[in-house]
Amino acid sequence: MFVIMVYDVNVKRVAKVLKTSRRYLLRVQNSVFEGEITPGLLNALKRDLDKIIDETEDSVLFYIWNHQSYSRRDFLGVNKTSWESINIL
Amino acid sequence: MFVIMVYDVNVKRVAKVLKTSRRYLLRVQNSVFEGEITPGLLNALKRDLDKIIDETEDSVLFYIWNHQSYSRRDFLGVNKTSWESINIL
Repeated sequence: MFVIMVYDVNVKRVAKVLKTSRRYLLRVQNSVFEGEITPGLLNALKRDLDKIIDETEDSVLFYIWNHQSYSRRDFLGVNKTSWESINIL
Repeated sequence: MFVIMVYDVNVKRVAKVLKTSRRYLLRVQNSVFEGEITPGLLNALKRDLDKIIDETEDSVLFYIWNHQSYSRRDFLGVNKTSWESINIL
């Protein structure tokens, strides 16, 4: 499945969220990750994030597709994709 | 077409970006908007944002689908969707 993940968490927890998310997905903007992922690994990512975030204050949003990704991705301004963050799981 | 828009702009320009984006799309997280939009209105949104952002510092990312939206949207933590921001264009 293909996932776009966007987080909005307190700055105190950003570093941990980044480190965890990088293990599963590709970072494309300061608070945006995307990538192909298995349902099992998506659940693992959610479990890991659940231990980090404060559920009363932070928000993590997952857009999930079963069979395809986006048709197009357009940028305005700086391209902040950090391709070096791709990990083979 | 269906669009997810994510922005990462300097705090000095956030208010203007928000105000402009709200005219076209639904805000679902602090820096995330989504919605059905015509190609013409998407171009208008991009033109409006282009006048606001600093291209050397800010970043706006559009995920675009021609025929469908996401299959599923999952949340962890707070649901920050501001449904009151829907506008009929």
